[in-house]
Amino acid sequence: MKRVIVDMDEVIADPMGDMITWYKKEYELDVDYSKMIGGSWLKGFPEQHQPIVRERLLSPGFFRNLSVMENSVEVLKEINERYELFIVSAAMEFPNSLKEKLEWMQEHFPFIGWRQITLCGDKRLVYGDYMIDDHVRNLQHFNGKKYLYTSAHNLDVTEYERLNNWEEAAKVFLV
Amino acid sequence: MKRVIVDMDEVIADPMGDMITWYKKEYELDVDYSKMIGGSWLKGFPEQHQPIVRERLLSPGFFRNLSVMENSVEVLKEINERYELFIVSAAMEFPNSLKEKLEWMQEHFPFIGWRQITLCGDKRLVYGDYMIDDHVRNLQHFNGKKYLYTSAHNLDVTEYERLNNWEEAAKVFLV
Repeated sequence: MKRVIVDMDEVIADPMGDMITWYKKEYELDVDYSKMIGGSWLKGFPEQHQPIVRERLLSPGFFRNLSVMENSVEVLKEINERYELFIVSAAMEFPNSLKEKLEWMQEHFPFIGWRQITLCGDKRLVYGDYMIDDHVRNLQHFNGKKYLYTSAHNLDVTEYERLNNWEEAAKVFLV
Repeated sequence: MKRVIVDMDEVIADPMGDMITWYKKEYELDVDYSKMIGGSWLKGFPEQHQPIVRERLLSPGFFRNLSVMENSVEVLKEINERYELFIVSAAMEFPNSLKEKLEWMQEHFPFIGWRQITLCGDKRLVYGDYMIDDHVRNLQHFNGKKYLYTSAHNLDVTEYERLNNWEEAAKVFLV
């Protein structure tokens, strides 16, 4: 069985989308997507509010209640039957997120067991056949085939094959 | 820089030792080390008390307050300067342990950054040059050189090179 390594945030979970929804409601201000490009989605928020956004990222509960990316459950369910699937999230920067990410997985992806979940600081440590991730820094050291999952912050990247959504992932992995 | 992957429990942290100390005090009974061999150290506790021991393993606070293995701090400090060091713990079975393990590392091994810590369900995912672990199941799939860290439950294992303590590790890694 080929091994597929799938990221969480901005790939199967939607912290950026949820943060923007919250922010617009709370401050009645918009984000600037163009400022996210080439960096982090945090940079799309007005500078004076970035510390508040960062604080919210670190607060208990944030990662527990994230929205699930469209079609990711259905497609990963099938991928899980045909591949050796691992979910790998670079989560160590957010200590409160650790247990929450595990619980979130168990709620939304109950067919993925705890043995298939890894929370790490640096993805250089993992290896496999395929990696799906929204960050070049995670893909660049990977030994296998790399897929950049499209997100507002990586629209400038040209050197990786893209998956724009989970329907596209299904076309690649489940043909 | 060569990559060294080091386990936590029974290698740099001492859950077994701490559990035995607590158990002897609480129940004034001894454990049977011979029953641990070839399995888990849990099996060394009298059968009627194994559920209590297991419950204690899952309870909040247990992993936060573990004793540190003798000489592991000093030796890992030097290993960290000469190698690319990662701490990898198969912790997903114990959701309460996740944040506690990170905090424990930050307290006792402050020279090891969060980027160097991985909490996983299955160590087949990681690769490197050296792995130090007390479980055959973690070593057997590893691509690099494997060292079995001696623990009461693995005394029967003959097919791996052993490190009996951190002084021996220093002699191997810091010559």
